[in-house]
Amino acid sequence: MALTALGSSARAETLPQRSILRNTLPLTILAASSQRVRASTGRPVRQTISGPYPLSLNSLWNRKIGIYGLGRIGKAIGRRLEGFELPINYHNRRPVAGCAYQYYSSLHNLAMAVDTLICAVPGNAATDGSINADILQALGPTGILINIGRSKTVDQDALIFCLENKIISAAGPDVFANESCVSDEMLMLENTSRRPHIAPASVDARGAVANLVIDNLLSWIKTGKTITPIE
Amino acid sequence: MALTALGSSARAETLPQRSILRNTLPLTILAASSQRVRASTGRPVRQTISGPYPLSLNSLWNRKIGIYGLGRIGKAIGRRLEGFELPINYHNRRPVAGCAYQYYSSLHNLAMAVDTLICAVPGNAATDGSINADILQALGPTGILINIGRSKTVDQDALIFCLENKIISAAGPDVFANESCVSDEMLMLENTSRRPHIAPASVDARGAVANLVIDNLLSWIKTGKTITPIE
Repeated sequence: MALTALGSSARAETLPQRSILRNTLPLTILAASSQRVRASTGRPVRQTISGPYPLSLNSLWNRKIGIYGLGRIGKAIGRRLEGFELPINYHNRRPVAGCAYQYYSSLHNLAMAVDTLICAVPGNAATDGSINADILQALGPTGILINIGRSKTVDQDALIFCLENKIISAAGPDVFANESCVSDEMLMLENTSRRPHIAPASVDARGAVANLVIDNLLSWIKTGKTITPIE
Repeated sequence: MALTALGSSARAETLPQRSILRNTLPLTILAASSQRVRASTGRPVRQTISGPYPLSLNSLWNRKIGIYGLGRIGKAIGRRLEGFELPINYHNRRPVAGCAYQYYSSLHNLAMAVDTLICAVPGNAATDGSINADILQALGPTGILINIGRSKTVDQDALIFCLENKIISAAGPDVFANESCVSDEMLMLENTSRRPHIAPASVDARGAVANLVIDNLLSWIKTGKTITPIE
């Protein structure tokens, strides 16, 4: 199932968006959340001085994936995860035509059915606060929540409570309430793999953005039109 | 392209192998090597006190993948990477029948053609030391080397020299020369994402191994045969 086959929005794909789509971020966070990348990379590889190595609490083995928001980015995440041969399920306002993933018409039922919930919905009145204590409880004690969408979609106090009390197993947020001034409770959690909202912050992506500025200027001078007009 | 379609070895898949196959490890290391997971997870998400965030030196954008050793694990790594829509190339003693990836009959030509080399060959006289200074030089200054195979396959002194002198960009070793007593030079490198050879060290995998022991005993008592005989 290619992204194009699923029919993407007609508007031009901007570079930061393309960067996020091409990016490993969602999978990196998922892998990091499930396999203690932080613990292992931060710790010297020297068994003689560091004692027994802690087992990873989670792996991707036998996990059931739920994607909340199967838009352009949600579809790209699904495509990445297909290679892991895990069942993929999703919740959207409407089923996506031609999509082989299992559809759930309610977020609660999706959370009940899976143990790995990846949030990629846009922020709006319908999604704000939709991942609340009920949804996290439904995800359950082996649950992992990844949020690469908007911080407002998740009730962060509920998330912190559920992580502190092992109501879910782990989380990988890329976005935070009151961002750039994240709460101490969130920063102190052991069972989270935080990323500070930096998906497109690579030399490649920023270089491509700089080149696009120049290409837009050249195109404007030559043809009177830009390559990526602001709509 | 499913693993089975590529024709896997007839011998029973043991649990640790299956765990490695199901595991995110190769991709985790690749993502971590290319996107500074360590820097980002180890650093507080608090821009007010931490100053400008460093750009990731690499991303997976436009990368060309080379798999050295397209056996069972190499194929599983390829399958995971297909979702990223990157060109996949490989070097093996012989081309793999029915495989759509581009084949290179020499490791050096593969290294010249790609910028991301993933090593999954078995250890033997033909592979020991095969990733040497020449191969790393061929991989070039944007190169990333991932080794989830055997430490002896890589000339570690050459690797350290190439990382220190930016002859390649980054590395993600899971295995090390003189393992459990890794050299200080290796531990001090900034542009590596080390993992201490712990792919199957998760609660899931170890629990499954424990269950398999019990199932083998029960099967032996009932039928006189084990489920996973030692060959």
